[in-house]
Amino acid sequence: MSELKASKQFDIRFSEVDSMKVVWHGSYVTYFEDAREAFGAKYGLDYMNYLNHDCYAPIVEETIHYHKSLRYGSKPRIDIIYRPTRAAKVVFDYEIYDTESGDLVATGHTVQAFVDTNYQLMLYSPDFYVEWQKKWKVFDK
Amino acid sequence: MSELKASKQFDIRFSEVDSMKVVWHGSYVTYFEDAREAFGAKYGLDYMNYLNHDCYAPIVEETIHYHKSLRYGSKPRIDIIYRPTRAAKVVFDYEIYDTESGDLVATGHTVQAFVDTNYQLMLYSPDFYVEWQKKWKVFDK
Amino acid sequence: MSELKASKQFDIRFSEVDSMKVVWHGSYVTYFEDAREAFGAKYGLDYMNYLNHDCYAPIVEETIHYHKSLRYGSKPRIDIIYRPTRAAKVVFDYEIYDTESGDLVATGHTVQAFVDTNYQLMLYSPDFYVEWQKKWKVFDK
Amino acid sequence: MSELKASKQFDIRFSEVDSMKVVWHGSYVTYFEDAREAFGAKYGLDYMNYLNHDCYAPIVEETIHYHKSLRYGSKPRIDIIYRPTRAAKVVFDYEIYDTESGDLVATGHTVQAFVDTNYQLMLYSPDFYVEWQKKWKVFDK
Repeated sequence: MSELKASKQFDIRFSEVDSMKVVWHGSYVTYFEDAREAFGAKYGLDYMNYLNHDCYAPIVEETIHYHKSLRYGSKPRIDIIYRPTRAAKVVFDYEIYDTESGDLVATGHTVQAFVDTNYQLMLYSPDFYVEWQKKWKVFDK
Repeated sequence: MSELKASKQFDIRFSEVDSMKVVWHGSYVTYFEDAREAFGAKYGLDYMNYLNHDCYAPIVEETIHYHKSLRYGSKPRIDIIYRPTRAAKVVFDYEIYDTESGDLVATGHTVQAFVDTNYQLMLYSPDFYVEWQKKWKVFDK
Repeated sequence: MSELKASKQFDIRFSEVDSMKVVWHGSYVTYFEDAREAFGAKYGLDYMNYLNHDCYAPIVEETIHYHKSLRYGSKPRIDIIYRPTRAAKVVFDYEIYDTESGDLVATGHTVQAFVDTNYQLMLYSPDFYVEWQKKWKVFDK
Repeated sequence: MSELKASKQFDIRFSEVDSMKVVWHGSYVTYFEDAREAFGAKYGLDYMNYLNHDCYAPIVEETIHYHKSLRYGSKPRIDIIYRPTRAAKVVFDYEIYDTESGDLVATGHTVQAFVDTNYQLMLYSPDFYVEWQKKWKVFDK
């Protein structure tokens, strides 16, 4: 069985490139966010789903490793892979590729926790997330 | 009598500089926002004041003229000047100077309207704003 | 004959929405930039074209009028229209529509001047731009 | 002996706050950048120093742990601590505090490598950096 994974091709904005003519490292946080959106749209796990269940899943940990630089005009692709956990967390790995050279440009990792609408940490996964994990058989993969 | 005016000195971030080694034009929107914050802190007219009176003052018009470019390491200053109006609007002019050369780098203008908490346009200025205008004698200047 | 025009549909990022749950006004500068990219890709007039001809076309004027607010989850489209001029300038108008309601959300305008690689203003249009205007018969439309 | 450390107090911009009324996680990358600037200004190790020695020190790794959320109006302080290494790297730890509650809001870590002006990785620390480490006796602390 395969893992839950989404992919998104994107363009480099001129304004994302710094005076060294490479993409500013901070832009990758936005690429990761766009990848989570693409994953959420594909598997039904986005901000709106959280809000509809009176919770929210803020990032509590983010790591990025930069292997190669990206330049204006390159055509990168980001892959996002869901990492199943029984903790009250949503964990993703990320891989950014330069689709022309095939090079792995960057890798990363985010952890999201659940908070209620008062922004209080939830110690247990909300029901809808447990159901979501069952539906997609995330622990069978 | 003098106009209502605030000033703020600021630094150019490396990430605000593009591959031409000048500040990306979009960064000026943030400089204007910082100037409004500085004005609001000085004269008691910031986002919190609006929210405390169940309204909000979104930007409905913004104009920026770029006369010179800013570079990393320069020390600009932004001046914000309140332009009195009897309309239900908050109008500011902006001037950015390079404090080393004295050059006028950019000028601009914003117009804010009032909306209620349902984001419906308010046709009349909220009372607290009329009071604020009286307190600062904006029409006597 | 019709004007030179490009269109781009886009998504609202969660990070572009502010605490009033509407898109932060500064994000529109990026939407306009994306529209210029789309236009440049369609008609061969992008940053790379400028750089290949030893010049650059920085924004010297930008105006945005906000008519309606955009929310997370909406599906806007931006249209960019080239406005022919014999001056050494590149002028665009912009229109952003909410594709679901059909509402006109925002309009805007940018003016770009030409500078050489030393960032000195060019008083005459570079040859490649004059050729580009001829090729697309911009004054016949 | 004490470690090399700089601190910077800062304000939360309205535009950094998301629709949950807390600071968007991506803004912390910019806070870290501002802290590196403050460190560089204090100890003479900033982007200009690198460029003056024909090199550049891009981020190759960045980690952020979010412990508490920041809200509009809070007054955070960021501390940046230099972590000495004999590798051709610049390593910093970061701590963000809410100065009103005293809470530790976030911690993080960046690693920078050296590249030459062709963006080729330098396997050994450039001389000026070795001198800088000696000057500040970073291995004696």
